[in-house]
Amino acid sequence: MRKFDINEDPHRRYNPLINEWVLVSPHRSKRPWQGQKEAVNTVGLPQYDPECYLCAGNVRMNGEKNPDYKESFVFENDFAALKQEPIDFVGNEEGSFFKAQPERGISRVVCFSPRHDLTLPEMDVDGIVNIIHTWQKEYTDLGAIDYINHVQIFENKGSVMGCSNPHPHGQIWAQSSLPTQVQKTQDSLKAYFDKNGTNLLQDYLKEELKVKDRIVVENDHFAAIVPFWAIWPFETMIVSKRHITKITDFTEDEVAAFAVILKKLTTKYDNLFETSFPYSSGIHQAPTDGEAHPEWQFHMHFYPPLLRSASVKKFMVGYEMMGESQRDITPEKSAEMLRNLSEVHYKQK
Amino acid sequence: MRKFDINEDPHRRYNPLINEWVLVSPHRSKRPWQGQKEAVNTVGLPQYDPECYLCAGNVRMNGEKNPDYKESFVFENDFAALKQEPIDFVGNEEGSFFKAQPERGISRVVCFSPRHDLTLPEMDVDGIVNIIHTWQKEYTDLGAIDYINHVQIFENKGSVMGCSNPHPHGQIWAQSSLPTQVQKTQDSLKAYFDKNGTNLLQDYLKEELKVKDRIVVENDHFAAIVPFWAIWPFETMIVSKRHITKITDFTEDEVAAFAVILKKLTTKYDNLFETSFPYSSGIHQAPTDGEAHPEWQFHMHFYPPLLRSASVKKFMVGYEMMGESQRDITPEKSAEMLRNLSEVHYKQK
Ligand SMILES: O=P(O)(O)O[C@H]1O[C@H](CO)[C@@H](O)[C@H](O)[C@H]1O
Ligand SMILES: O=P(O)(O)O[C@H]1O[C@H](CO)[C@@H](O)[C@H](O)[C@H]1O
Repeated sequence: MRKFDINEDPHRRYNPLINEWVLVSPHRSKRPWQGQKEAVNTVGLPQYDPECYLCAGNVRMNGEKNPDYKESFVFENDFAALKQEPIDFVGNEEGSFFKAQPERGISRVVCFSPRHDLTLPEMDVDGIVNIIHTWQKEYTDLGAIDYINHVQIFENKGSVMGCSNPHPHGQIWAQSSLPTQVQKTQDSLKAYFDKNGTNLLQDYLKEELKVKDRIVVENDHFAAIVPFWAIWPFETMIVSKRHITKITDFTEDEVAAFAVILKKLTTKYDNLFETSFPYSSGIHQAPTDGEAHPEWQFHMHFYPPLLRSASVKKFMVGYEMMGESQRDITPEKSAEMLRNLSEVHYKQK
Repeated sequence: MRKFDINEDPHRRYNPLINEWVLVSPHRSKRPWQGQKEAVNTVGLPQYDPECYLCAGNVRMNGEKNPDYKESFVFENDFAALKQEPIDFVGNEEGSFFKAQPERGISRVVCFSPRHDLTLPEMDVDGIVNIIHTWQKEYTDLGAIDYINHVQIFENKGSVMGCSNPHPHGQIWAQSSLPTQVQKTQDSLKAYFDKNGTNLLQDYLKEELKVKDRIVVENDHFAAIVPFWAIWPFETMIVSKRHITKITDFTEDEVAAFAVILKKLTTKYDNLFETSFPYSSGIHQAPTDGEAHPEWQFHMHFYPPLLRSASVKKFMVGYEMMGESQRDITPEKSAEMLRNLSEVHYKQK
């Protein structure tokens, strides 16, 4: 019998962050693709678009006028999935299959810059530092509201990720409950902390820094890695080298280093297929429920859909929906490809 | 304070099948959509396509020639994600973050019919009965292989669901481990059975048949419902009215009734936006590990991506990936829309 070769043989990997497995089929990356191709947007964007509801000075759908903002700009989402209004709730019948509870929250939009045409990799580091400061302020302000126990900061980039406006922006959904994925992560971090007295992601990062196979880029304070258990072809995670539970605990050095690694990682992403690389990214950090949460570790996920070119994405469908996430290219191979890419944006060359 | 109104207020619903929550934002269904539109395929297909590698008599990429099949036809996937070869595996180091294990399995493709142009709703009931018999045979044959403990039957329909060939076909991935979603379902079913001595889905179905709000179509043996905890806008689940753990336990009456409900449900789907409605569907049933599994209940999931038209889908991105699944239209509203649609296919009118 052949000995298990993780680079060649179909296998499953375990994700200790959410206690789930992923199926890896390295040999399958040679499969030809005859299916749907994504539209590739190659049109250059203007610095200001009079039709864009996120550009400075323009009027949004609800009639409000954006200020003449110069850095980042935050406003309440005009079509929020959550509402602030408190709702009177008597509870569910014991054992009922129809178990529901009202959920209170606030959704905000964060414009990253007044420039309509610049995404993270093309912004300068100062501009990204400004965004991080904005995230810190929002985490603090929203987290201070008594009924807000979780602040989800995220970005959908690219039309293939459901983003309806190319103007660089992210969102924040703050709410009373811990969302499903966060609860799972917290359960794993907590169980690990209770057992070992240390932080799961800090311990994991130490191992990754030893073997180096999955490191994409690092600096004094952060590392961007393709997790051993990544499900998306070019999924990455940025973790701080110091045990930090939330973004407001960053030193100013860490803020600057985080800005630099964000710029480098997203530049490599754009360079991979020489396209404005689509992804959903999001920050996972301590809940704002007033507890200490030493089990938590600040980290940021990037889930990009593209598989082999600007137009061919990975479909998480059928087997993935019914069974489990599946990937073809190995995390080690993806990390190597990203690591070897230039840190200078292809448009700047 | 206003009293909680499940039809109007943002809320979370609990899914007891996989122990997860979904965020529901009923008011948000009015949001205008300016984002990506899916290509709608309106080209009529020929009954036979000389270029199609699934049509009868044609040659596949590996050089094999399809037989001149008359009903359904099964072959091994030429680009299988799983391999049958046994692999020698020594195990993982205790406590290692790099936890992986080889996975053995078999992937097959099931062509539903020699007709290149017919999907389930347009096939006649006899043709669908033939597919069900094929699924039964595959579940038996694959399940009988000693190292196969789970047989996942599924279909990806439509290019938006990663399907690269419109010729009607599904897939079967059979493997040694229980995939993540199946393991979660089994854990919930088992816990419920141990506590109550009854089947979770049977008990749930009884409640749904009482209130009727989420029933789309039913007959003597099956009901198709939009689950109370559905995440996709028009997600449905077909459940048998009798406690059946696996497809091979169907009586011939049940096979016929299952064929009829499959045809009616998928016809309603096509009629919703007058398009060949894309979805991933899949059957969840007892594992083939040789145990009795009285906790299991045969059911079939349909996860369709479309939201408001043939070209506007729901994006499960950012918040959904980092936080939890989110839906706008309520399951009750979706069920009502589907229920009120004709059972005659729009092309037949
Ligand atoms: O096997 P196919 O049809 O080539 O591929 C399709 O279905 C598979 C199983 O759901 C997925 O892993 C692929 O991403 C998808 O494109
Ligand atoms: O809020 P937006 O940008 O209009 O909408 C986008 O992001 C949301 C949060 O991830 C998703 O719920 C939507 O499906 C997506 O289209």
